Amino acid sequence: MARAVAGPEIERLVQLLARVPGLGPRSARRAALQLIKKRESLMAPLAGAMEEVLGKIGTCPVCGNLDVRSPCLVCSDPTRDPTLIIVVADVSDLWALERSGAMNARYHVLGGTLSPLDGIGPDDLNIASLIGRVRDGGVAEVLLALPATVDGQTTAHFVTELLRETGVKVTRLAHGVPVGGELDYLDEGTLAAAIRARTTL
Amino acid sequence: MARAVAGPEIERLVQLLARVPGLGPRSARRAALQLIKKRESLMAPLAGAMEEVLGKIGTCPVCGNLDVRSPCLVCSDPTRDPTLIIVVADVSDLWALERSGAMNARYHVLGGTLSPLDGIGPDDLNIASLIGRVRDGGVAEVLLALPATVDGQTTAHFVTELLRETGVKVTRLAHGVPVGGELDYLDEGTLAAAIRARTTL
Repeated sequence: MARAVAGPEIERLVQLLARVPGLGPRSARRAALQLIKKRESLMAPLAGAMEEVLGKIGTCPVCGNLDVRSPCLVCSDPTRDPTLIIVVADVSDLWALERSGAMNARYHVLGGTLSPLDGIGPDDLNIASLIGRVRDGGVAEVLLALPATVDGQTTAHFVTELLRETGVKVTRLAHGVPVGGELDYLDEGTLAAAIRARTTL
Repeated sequence: MARAVAGPEIERLVQLLARVPGLGPRSARRAALQLIKKRESLMAPLAGAMEEVLGKIGTCPVCGNLDVRSPCLVCSDPTRDPTLIIVVADVSDLWALERSGAMNARYHVLGGTLSPLDGIGPDDLNIASLIGRVRDGGVAEVLLALPATVDGQTTAHFVTELLRETGVKVTRLAHGVPVGGELDYLDEGTLAAAIRARTTL
């Protein structure tokens, strides 16, 4: 703003909102104004929800998921298959896989991928606790749902090597054409992988 | 989410964030996760800023601006020209005009535009208080910065008629080509207005 038209409290709210992913400086102003207008119906409940999460949230000691209870809702769900652990890099990947509804398994959140350039080594990720969970027994398969990037695949390799001695079955997500995807827009690597992994009709 | 992977507290935070303008259901999840990860550096200050604004915010009794003090920062600023009142439909328009930095004036926020279809009549807007401010004297010009829509122009007409008896000078924003705008993308109405209001070089 060229000059202040409202107190620094509102300016501060705008600046903090601008740091929320999905909101930029411009939409943060619009969001702040709407929050102020809907202060009873939206801003007050939102501030309350944040305070409540702030007071309770933590990292699940078993799988690394973020939840208000410990162990998290996934780990304490008795209806989930305890023999399958899906390994993900980030909690957002856990959420994304759950939205697909394809599996009724447990998870293990590494908290990132190995990245020598960024100085992220095995000790910075929840890899030791994954090996521990598998060693404790009862796990038949570890599905590595890691990003299809260089760092993701390096991490997958590293974890696979560590898990080899436990004898557990290690799998990874299939590569291929995204459902609903136009071939025209796909990169060559994905197309080549989809051809190699072609299935018989 | 297909099924809960975290407590209802987080789900509630996502749902409330999805109602913030600029965030949809998908980006609300991403925002919630980032807020949780940056809970000390972002979520706690943001919740605090909201609580602070919630406790103090109100509508300025003079001009209708939203601020934490009363009268608002604009109305209580002695360096602003008290002889010019810029009339806007919404607080967001006030913020937008201030960003332009073109004027050092006072404002009057109507709180909307006349809209017979939506049942918004003169009594639903802060029109009477505007007439009162002009009648109290000391105002030389009222600049109607209302939307260039049918409802906005109807409102401008209505306000102009009411102000006629006070003898104050009433102006409106110029129509024309937006700065940096391509002629090709402009509608005919804007182009015709820009031609009619052409200026000599």
